[in-house]
Amino acid sequence: MSTVQLVSEDSSHPIVRRVFDDIKATKKIDHIPNIWRALATHPEHLELCWTRLKAIMAPGRVDALTKEIIALAVSATNGCNYCINSHTAAVQKLGLTLEQLGEVLAVVGLFNQMNKLADAFQVTPDILPKDW
Amino acid sequence: MSTVQLVSEDSSHPIVRRVFDDIKATKKIDHIPNIWRALATHPEHLELCWTRLKAIMAPGRVDALTKEIIALAVSATNGCNYCINSHTAAVQKLGLTLEQLGEVLAVVGLFNQMNKLADAFQVTPDILPKDW
Amino acid sequence: MSTVQLVSEDSSHPIVRRVFDDIKATKKIDHIPNIWRALATHPEHLELCWTRLKAIMAPGRVDALTKEIIALAVSATNGCNYCINSHTAAVQKLGLTLEQLGEVLAVVGLFNQMNKLADAFQVTPDILPKDW
Amino acid sequence: MSTVQLVSEDSSHPIVRRVFDDIKATKKIDHIPNIWRALATHPEHLELCWTRLKAIMAPGRVDALTKEIIALAVSATNGCNYCINSHTAAVQKLGLTLEQLGEVLAVVGLFNQMNKLADAFQVTPDILPKDW
Amino acid sequence: MSTVQLVSEDSSHPIVRRVFDDIKATKKIDHIPNIWRALATHPEHLELCWTRLKAIMAPGRVDALTKEIIALAVSATNGCNYCINSHTAAVQKLGLTLEQLGEVLAVVGLFNQMNKLADAFQVTPDILPKDW
Amino acid sequence: MSTVQLVSEDSSHPIVRRVFDDIKATKKIDHIPNIWRALATHPEHLELCWTRLKAIMAPGRVDALTKEIIALAVSATNGCNYCINSHTAAVQKLGLTLEQLGEVLAVVGLFNQMNKLADAFQVTPDILPKDW
Repeated sequence: MSTVQLVSEDSSHPIVRRVFDDIKATKKIDHIPNIWRALATHPEHLELCWTRLKAIMAPGRVDALTKEIIALAVSATNGCNYCINSHTAAVQKLGLTLEQLGEVLAVVGLFNQMNKLADAFQVTPDILPKDW
Repeated sequence: MSTVQLVSEDSSHPIVRRVFDDIKATKKIDHIPNIWRALATHPEHLELCWTRLKAIMAPGRVDALTKEIIALAVSATNGCNYCINSHTAAVQKLGLTLEQLGEVLAVVGLFNQMNKLADAFQVTPDILPKDW
Repeated sequence: MSTVQLVSEDSSHPIVRRVFDDIKATKKIDHIPNIWRALATHPEHLELCWTRLKAIMAPGRVDALTKEIIALAVSATNGCNYCINSHTAAVQKLGLTLEQLGEVLAVVGLFNQMNKLADAFQVTPDILPKDW
Repeated sequence: MSTVQLVSEDSSHPIVRRVFDDIKATKKIDHIPNIWRALATHPEHLELCWTRLKAIMAPGRVDALTKEIIALAVSATNGCNYCINSHTAAVQKLGLTLEQLGEVLAVVGLFNQMNKLADAFQVTPDILPKDW
Repeated sequence: MSTVQLVSEDSSHPIVRRVFDDIKATKKIDHIPNIWRALATHPEHLELCWTRLKAIMAPGRVDALTKEIIALAVSATNGCNYCINSHTAAVQKLGLTLEQLGEVLAVVGLFNQMNKLADAFQVTPDILPKDW
Repeated sequence: MSTVQLVSEDSSHPIVRRVFDDIKATKKIDHIPNIWRALATHPEHLELCWTRLKAIMAPGRVDALTKEIIALAVSATNGCNYCINSHTAAVQKLGLTLEQLGEVLAVVGLFNQMNKLADAFQVTPDILPKDW
């Protein structure tokens, strides 16, 4: 159960109204996901989060599917249940197959292991990026 | 300074020799990165790690660049210095531009924030993947 | 379901009894929260945890509400469901408003993002505290 | 060493220029901290991060010092070296004493412990916030 | 609910069949735990995970109970519900008593605290292992 | 560089003096490790941390080496540089061989991977401990 009462999808608060309508239009969905209804308890924060997410997730030099794959990799590494579900649904909707999901998660698992081994041995960085 | 003495690149231990040679051939490099020299203090574990990494990172239904991007996203989320350096170098080598790196890291930052907000509000998952 | 059987609130074990009574008196509550009933399966550890928590959470040069806000920030960053619920209830009881909660969580989300970006770029510390 | 070349403080890129000037004016400092110079490699992301940080960190219903304390608590929990240094410097500048820092970090340490114990025992939440 | 449909215990896929049979024989159990049924959606990854886990968890110079205790310590630190349950069951099966579990978790809690304090103060390592 | 000035080993503050002397006597060392010198900036917290650590790390139903192995596993999972160094030195001093260290870290790496896979698939716990 959420720690705040979720704001109604029909809220008439002007900021909430504007953001909720934009979420529906942008994501082409007809309901407001719970995370946005929770954030709406502080309308200014809701708007900051949404406008920033919208800007960052818009396809640019990196495509939408890759962005959602990154979101899933981060969410799995952090163990966030809500986000794992929602980003798994998102990559699926964008066409990732079950076989590809298996490959993505294999990489996520692998580097969660390798990160800890590199830390555990305290190895000094020796592979550095060049000037871009 | 690493917590174990790094194994020499010239080690004659048969497992270490085989893995080190394979690392050089597979990655087309002429030195052995520190992490593998640290793992070589336990040759059987070195081999398990390397053969698995090689299998998982080979391009399959997901391409090599996307896999390295996932590796970087995981490493940044875990704050692993060695791995952040090495996977930034890897994505660079595979052609990611500085502008694309900026987009990738923007997504990584964004969902580290959103994950914690979803946890903080204890929102119940409402966007679930369908049967695959 | 907890991994151990929660110790009864009516336990007659002398250490458990003493700690449970002190928890009720200190927190002005009439039941024992689950976490303490789980810890009571090892009475000496229960006592170590409780006496330390009691000492650290007592108002000192930092007030009680700020201490609970820190507890919530840590719990959200770690994604601990039990603790997020209990510290949200605690800040509420101490008078934090919903609007203030929104601001607190906005800061929590923000720095979970900024922390990962600072790590991802491997920026060297350049803003250091002076001698205190 | 950072993974990207830090953008010069004298950059003439219009977005970077605007943000850098605003950072100096808002924070009343005469140099640009490294994290912003790294973010400036992607000017749009720099601007998104800065305008959002500026909005969230402005004193509102929660005061500036409490916000910096939260930032420090999050950064210590995540183990982000750059951010630990910069937020320790920030709370010091805002008047936190060494004795108060000790209390703040005691709370941070305490709940990093308690979070893991609550998870380890898998205790079910029993202290829930009321309707706000 | 899992994000993929769990593969049936009766799967006739040759890799899955071989791994499932080996899991039952090795662990002396007559059902397949959910995690392996989820991994089986990508049979090659299932096999990589299982053969590696089997190799690493086999008693060697470190005994089976100590290995499961490490698994539990890692899982509690990461807050992974599934794994906390399964490794608590495993240490119990291998003979760990409730009193010993209390001691194990006390150590886990303690160093989750101490780790964050060491990070928070940015103390420089001064206790280094000698050459092995 | 630490964020506070480390307290001198020769401090005459009565609490600090008592704790520093006890650290030297208990650990049979003739210098005070940096972490305790940093904690000494808040003597009451120093004492709380030390007396608790001393009580928890004393051999009980779990031996001293296993406790240090747990400390190392937790520190590697959290990526705490100071603690990784000091607990690797501690297990070495207590007789762990390089080969055993390799096995310990293999288990640490393995479950950091498996934890994230279990989270990523959102598998429901099905292996539960029995009543103790």
